Amino acid sequence: MIKTNFVGARLCAFGLVVLSGCAMLLTGAACAADPLASWNDGPAKQSIIAFVEKVTHTAAPEFVPLPERIATFDNDGTLWCEQPLPVQFYFALDRVKTLAPQHPEWRTQEPFASLLKGDLKTALAGGDRALLELVIATHTGMSTVEFEQIVKAWIASARHPKTGKLFTDMAYQPMIELLAYLRANGFKTFIVSGGGIEFMRPWADKLYGVPPEQVVGSSVKTQFELRDGKPVLVRLPELNFIDDKGGKPVGINQHIGRRPLMAFGNSDGDREMLQYTQGGAGARFELLVLHDDAAREYAYGPAKGLPDVKLGAFTQALYDQAKTAGWTVVSMKDDWKRIFAFEK
Amino acid sequence: MIKTNFVGARLCAFGLVVLSGCAMLLTGAACAADPLASWNDGPAKQSIIAFVEKVTHTAAPEFVPLPERIATFDNDGTLWCEQPLPVQFYFALDRVKTLAPQHPEWRTQEPFASLLKGDLKTALAGGDRALLELVIATHTGMSTVEFEQIVKAWIASARHPKTGKLFTDMAYQPMIELLAYLRANGFKTFIVSGGGIEFMRPWADKLYGVPPEQVVGSSVKTQFELRDGKPVLVRLPELNFIDDKGGKPVGINQHIGRRPLMAFGNSDGDREMLQYTQGGAGARFELLVLHDDAAREYAYGPAKGLPDVKLGAFTQALYDQAKTAGWTVVSMKDDWKRIFAFEK
Repeated sequence: MIKTNFVGARLCAFGLVVLSGCAMLLTGAACAADPLASWNDGPAKQSIIAFVEKVTHTAAPEFVPLPERIATFDNDGTLWCEQPLPVQFYFALDRVKTLAPQHPEWRTQEPFASLLKGDLKTALAGGDRALLELVIATHTGMSTVEFEQIVKAWIASARHPKTGKLFTDMAYQPMIELLAYLRANGFKTFIVSGGGIEFMRPWADKLYGVPPEQVVGSSVKTQFELRDGKPVLVRLPELNFIDDKGGKPVGINQHIGRRPLMAFGNSDGDREMLQYTQGGAGARFELLVLHDDAAREYAYGPAKGLPDVKLGAFTQALYDQAKTAGWTVVSMKDDWKRIFAFEK
Repeated sequence: MIKTNFVGARLCAFGLVVLSGCAMLLTGAACAADPLASWNDGPAKQSIIAFVEKVTHTAAPEFVPLPERIATFDNDGTLWCEQPLPVQFYFALDRVKTLAPQHPEWRTQEPFASLLKGDLKTALAGGDRALLELVIATHTGMSTVEFEQIVKAWIASARHPKTGKLFTDMAYQPMIELLAYLRANGFKTFIVSGGGIEFMRPWADKLYGVPPEQVVGSSVKTQFELRDGKPVLVRLPELNFIDDKGGKPVGINQHIGRRPLMAFGNSDGDREMLQYTQGGAGARFELLVLHDDAAREYAYGPAKGLPDVKLGAFTQALYDQAKTAGWTVVSMKDDWKRIFAFEK
């Protein structure tokens, strides 16, 4: 408890406005402004705080100057819920429904035919090829500005199929606190996700405090055109980059040009990002979120004998690697006091 | 002069440390801390200051909030000298000389044979294909970390063939002041150049105050690999992206995800970036640097009847477009009090 209070006090000292109220509270048993209030005081929380203190105390041997404090976060399954399917898939599905009247051929053409019948399993059986067709059909052909407006309108009202909550309410409160805690300690926080870069940018700033220029993701090619004399970028029906697995370090290098100091993920798609982070000189920090809370969220991945999933898989091999490499593994069940802000 | 003093005072007020000294000077005729001291008090300087004041005064109708204050700068010919050839070409040339002992076949193979004989004209006659071969041979095959070290070692001592100055001394002092002035007014400054992104990053922060994550440029593909168990990114002999002409808005969208508020260039390669900038809603600012000072730098481009060049061309068509569109054209001869910091 002493350790937690100390951190709270340090964080409070960051903002003068907060200081006076917090100092009053400190005369009691605890500072109310614990920046990681939704984390239980277990080893995961302690490992984060210990690392941040180590690299931010000017006198510490492992002190890291401000510009090098780069933290990269996977999105699906790390910052928000990715079950039963990643959010962007529901976006694509709703786009198929919206566009169907203009595409009578979809009634017999897969994966659209199955999607329109509500048979997601058959639609997804087509694998990567089906997914690519789905992305091309629903995410391209318009300008980047038009696409942004489509995403913004959708995310404002789209809801999770199980909880009925807005998808944006399915972001993990402990991770939102972690993002803010790192920024308060001088970190620049980036999203590095397999999801579409232009699907995430319209809401990532409001939800996570991550501005568009700090979002890295998968993309389609775009082309500069003058339409009626107005300069626009048109989204072309061609993949540009897949920001997953070995693509994550590539995307990080392309967009950031520095090796992260801290990296956060939850699946095999994040392995290379964590390896790349750990490969840097000096102290580094890597963390994986393990989904082991069927009651409050979902439980998946073979670690601890949980059922495996295709998307967002946290394999036993990754779990073993995390233990060997000294990566922090967060148990959502044990380490998170609450998962969603809407919980009491 | 009154206008200039006012701007100096505003800038001084930004930093409390500067304020006291500056306030003392203000009791005299002028504030010594004119942030654009190397600019003559002509229409170009005035247009920059007027725009920045318009978008940063909270009460102004065209006020722009901090996160949207994005300024993008071309590099070659806009921030530093690109004549007689762009700096990166000299880097490639020196790499050819360094690597030649390992490549006996280059003695008869173009463009290498001519380069090794010092015949740049013949070497460049091969056009884009020869340039591509040169880039692949000299910029790929190593890890990104190795390439960074090669660039750092080279730029520390490489000198301009005419002036004998370090290439980094050939940066334009008025533009370095402009970058700092914009940042002091809350702008995030980006480089958006046809040059190699990983060629620029190792020195852009020190020279321009632009950190790696704010550099956009051309690139080769990279691949994640474990070499002796160490995670590295290997530079592959394949082009990834050309950040020039219509590619500049594409690169801006990919890396920044916002339309610039201000854009700065000097050639036909920057036209689309300026068009894209101007196409945004509200007030925007576009500027082109015209190289018309043969005495202090170089004079090229057909505007005002100057000789044309192939690389970095400022065509008459671009000049006409700038006038029609209301873009600011900087005459290096008339608008810049001094061009390089080493001038008296």
